[in-house]
Amino acid sequence: MPVIHYQHLLRLTHAMIAALGTPDDLAHMVAGSLVEANLRGHDSHGVLRLPWYARFVDDGRLLPAARPSLAEQRGATARIDGAFGWGQPAARLAAGTAVDLAAEYGIGLTIIERGNHIGRVGEYVGLIAEAGMVGMAWCNASPSVAPFGGRHRLMGTNPFAWAAPRGPGRAPLILDFATSIVAEGKLRVARAAGQSLDPGLILDAAGHPSQNADDFYAGGALVPFGLHKGSGLSVMIELLARAVAGVEHGATEYRGYNGTMLLAIAMSGVVDTDRYLEAAERFCAAVESSEPADGVPRVLLPGQPEEAIRAQRLVDGIPLAARTWDDIRALAADLRVHGV
Amino acid sequence: MPVIHYQHLLRLTHAMIAALGTPDDLAHMVAGSLVEANLRGHDSHGVLRLPWYARFVDDGRLLPAARPSLAEQRGATARIDGAFGWGQPAARLAAGTAVDLAAEYGIGLTIIERGNHIGRVGEYVGLIAEAGMVGMAWCNASPSVAPFGGRHRLMGTNPFAWAAPRGPGRAPLILDFATSIVAEGKLRVARAAGQSLDPGLILDAAGHPSQNADDFYAGGALVPFGLHKGSGLSVMIELLARAVAGVEHGATEYRGYNGTMLLAIAMSGVVDTDRYLEAAERFCAAVESSEPADGVPRVLLPGQPEEAIRAQRLVDGIPLAARTWDDIRALAADLRVHGV
Repeated sequence: MPVIHYQHLLRLTHAMIAALGTPDDLAHMVAGSLVEANLRGHDSHGVLRLPWYARFVDDGRLLPAARPSLAEQRGATARIDGAFGWGQPAARLAAGTAVDLAAEYGIGLTIIERGNHIGRVGEYVGLIAEAGMVGMAWCNASPSVAPFGGRHRLMGTNPFAWAAPRGPGRAPLILDFATSIVAEGKLRVARAAGQSLDPGLILDAAGHPSQNADDFYAGGALVPFGLHKGSGLSVMIELLARAVAGVEHGATEYRGYNGTMLLAIAMSGVVDTDRYLEAAERFCAAVESSEPADGVPRVLLPGQPEEAIRAQRLVDGIPLAARTWDDIRALAADLRVHGV
Repeated sequence: MPVIHYQHLLRLTHAMIAALGTPDDLAHMVAGSLVEANLRGHDSHGVLRLPWYARFVDDGRLLPAARPSLAEQRGATARIDGAFGWGQPAARLAAGTAVDLAAEYGIGLTIIERGNHIGRVGEYVGLIAEAGMVGMAWCNASPSVAPFGGRHRLMGTNPFAWAAPRGPGRAPLILDFATSIVAEGKLRVARAAGQSLDPGLILDAAGHPSQNADDFYAGGALVPFGLHKGSGLSVMIELLARAVAGVEHGATEYRGYNGTMLLAIAMSGVVDTDRYLEAAERFCAAVESSEPADGVPRVLLPGQPEEAIRAQRLVDGIPLAARTWDDIRALAADLRVHGV
């Protein structure tokens, strides 16, 4: 498995995104987002996406030079026009705008219309938490998940991200998960390795449980996490995000563009900030010092597994599947990006 | 199993709550909340709670004549002072205030401080949805759930509720679940019946998996739903709700009072309402008309199981466990409430 130093991967990713026709500042932002996802172990949202994004640029779905903008503010809410450009800069603008609104009104909500794939959703709620606020985000994706009790794919993997600040010097808590029981990337890995899946993860095209990853790609479906509860979350996210995604198109039909909604809550608006942080630290300390289950080294808070992977990968480099690295090198050659 | 007509149960519940020293208007509100929970099949949040509430009144934790009030509004957020009275009127005020704020600012957030148990959380997000808005609510509860990978109880069953309006004439979607894998009420039922539990629901006091409900009551813990994902949701809810619950007490320590946070989103602020409703109906229709899995009669949307139970119980009456009905009758006798 090739292991790439993050700085090398960042330079390369930036060069490739720039070569796709992206202005330098936006290319820095997108490359930073992708490599940060790899650093945190969210490889399914990292540089693996480069060939996929390049296809979006080729087919006109992603306009690489387009810039997101604030389309309209109404009260404590705002609409960000993604202009069908890169999703990452649009989502950063949406997060910053939500923070600005929450600074003024105590709470702020932004949506992204005419959006594209925003990458690791945890990044944007993390930005909100770094501004001292609680952040939440919901977005949908192309249908791949069957509802609980259903037979066919109807919903996206619809991520839900939620971040909260801790006391000074502590990384914020960042919860960031797909509402499917596993990420589709896990299926790709099992398929490439010729391994069978654990039971309970996917249905085949006929809607029967399967352990063969190929069945997913032959028209099957992922199963939601957490039975009816996780399925219900995915349904609610789909409902909101489709309405958001559909705005621009003058139609209610879902056209594949992600709908994204971001929320910022200034805890200082409703409670004393020092008390919030004290209460947060006290609870976090109770979790961190609690006795772990058999075979578990320690009880972790949301975001801590990612922080640990990040610390390791900053030093040791980022391991990439051989196929991912091959695809990236092939794309770099196509784009005449050298020094790979 | 005794089956009680809902109108009889409502009159009786109202009389008992009034006899506890509650003004008539508040008693109507609380009785309506409890019986509505039973009508929807959420029996763990229905009249089963009457003896428990009566003990709260006895020990001074619940002040039956206290009235909630709007303590402070700041921007699009507000604090509701629960005044240590009944939680249900406080939560109704918090929902109504969130709607008012969202009507003005596009979004509104309210918290309840000095609160008590608010009952079925779905009720309040349902009120927000009936006002044409998306509602969300989070609150904590006394510790009974071990975090994923942990051995001991640290978090409450921390419910998460989320409701969204549908088109005219359609009941709103209402998602309302505990972040524990099962409600504690299920353990009570199994214990009373001397049945063993399904695997994976609880830990014993030593932190080992158990199927004996007694082990939960002997210092064990419930397991969160959805592995690390559901556990992460519970952690984030606990973090916010404790800060909210702690405000009044001038301390960050959690004292057992629930912290509650309610959010209203006026979809009309960010998207065209007609388009939202059309998109919602189209997606809901796709789910409702989708082919169910083997052995499943039909795929249901959040809230539909409860609507079906409600329609049946309005006609057939509300079945109560014999022990619940005995306890209620004993309490009624204590309170000199007749006509049971």
